[in-house]
Amino acid sequence: MRGVSTTLSHAPRVLAFDIFGTVVDWHGSIAREVQALRPGVDGAAFARAWRAGYRPAMARVMSGELGWTLIDDLHRMILDQILPQFGLQDMGEDERRHLNKAWHRLDPWPDTVAGLTRLKAKFTLCTLSNGNLGLLTNMAKRAGLPWDCILSAEVFRAYKPDPATYLGVARVFDVPPAQVMLVATHQDDLAAARACGLQTAYVERPMEFGGGHGKDDTPNPANTLHARDLLQLAQQLGC
Amino acid sequence: MRGVSTTLSHAPRVLAFDIFGTVVDWHGSIAREVQALRPGVDGAAFARAWRAGYRPAMARVMSGELGWTLIDDLHRMILDQILPQFGLQDMGEDERRHLNKAWHRLDPWPDTVAGLTRLKAKFTLCTLSNGNLGLLTNMAKRAGLPWDCILSAEVFRAYKPDPATYLGVARVFDVPPAQVMLVATHQDDLAAARACGLQTAYVERPMEFGGGHGKDDTPNPANTLHARDLLQLAQQLGC
Repeated sequence: MRGVSTTLSHAPRVLAFDIFGTVVDWHGSIAREVQALRPGVDGAAFARAWRAGYRPAMARVMSGELGWTLIDDLHRMILDQILPQFGLQDMGEDERRHLNKAWHRLDPWPDTVAGLTRLKAKFTLCTLSNGNLGLLTNMAKRAGLPWDCILSAEVFRAYKPDPATYLGVARVFDVPPAQVMLVATHQDDLAAARACGLQTAYVERPMEFGGGHGKDDTPNPANTLHARDLLQLAQQLGC
Repeated sequence: MRGVSTTLSHAPRVLAFDIFGTVVDWHGSIAREVQALRPGVDGAAFARAWRAGYRPAMARVMSGELGWTLIDDLHRMILDQILPQFGLQDMGEDERRHLNKAWHRLDPWPDTVAGLTRLKAKFTLCTLSNGNLGLLTNMAKRAGLPWDCILSAEVFRAYKPDPATYLGVARVFDVPPAQVMLVATHQDDLAAARACGLQTAYVERPMEFGGGHGKDDTPNPANTLHARDLLQLAQQLGC
């Protein structure tokens, strides 16, 4: 078992958190909002379809095909694309705008607020998300997420996994990259952070894509820590 | 008497706060740190000299003479300039670095934390300061300032009073400028915000420059509100 605090050769000073999937349950939250609006629709499938459009849309920005675009606007482009696939092409402008803001209203996982609160006593906690600042602020205010600072792709004008984002956290807090630990439930995000010299902690989120859509939470020994949830991470970090 | 909540034709949704002088007591805090390090020095005069170098240094950045520079680095340039004036040219690198971070350790005014906490229940609270993100985060964590989001010149790559900063707050939160209220103890900052369409609230801070260095806290009817402190502002805004 890796990851008790005494195995860390250098304790981090800043913990930077991935958000969608790691801190909040996008799948369950979006599915609930869609089904509340349109009870006949398969909310789980709708949530997965919306999320599936996210990486291709970011790739269009990073390739230069689209100019710099906030996630709110990418979410809206994808929403307009998938509505007809679910027979919802009749949805009006006000309802589309309301539904698009569902990404501001994602619910935290059951361990999130308690885990962050424990970690905050010892470390500086920030977000490092491709979500925009307004989205992350509204989410934190609604869910009670106790960030010390909200950082985002919007600050660095680059999406993860661009090195400018990971190195940007270290620069903002004036510490070496090794004193920043990225916490995420996605191995590719953690690998990119590690390549920039950050420490990394994997958090298991087996329900990220809903029940029956298994997620591979196998530990990768390249990560500094591997935790079942944020409460176990707090324990591993001596909080 | 201006400024009861019922006189506001449109309530703001976001309150953006100036920091140095408005939320924290830079003068008293810097004076105490300097005198703790060097008991023979006039801490009050030292604090005023340090702060006096701030606007000229920013002007050098905004004119293009200096490239984009964080306030931490501007503070250090000014510190190196003024040390000889106070007979402290012998101060070593470690001590200079420590003293420069005194700007991360400024104490809040007595009403600040209670006032912000009341306001946070009804509004989104953010900083809008020329201080850098790391400075503002460290200050908030130490002093218990309950921001929803930390915004800074560093995010907008422009210092106040550049319109990009005031309009940037409205853009981040996706609201019209009139739904943002700048809270500050400096009329020039508020005038620049007003020119961008923001609402404005003046907060009296008669001790900003220390005792015996009076500050003109005369109400300006152009401001939306004028408050004795943040507790009175909370009352005026119905919190």
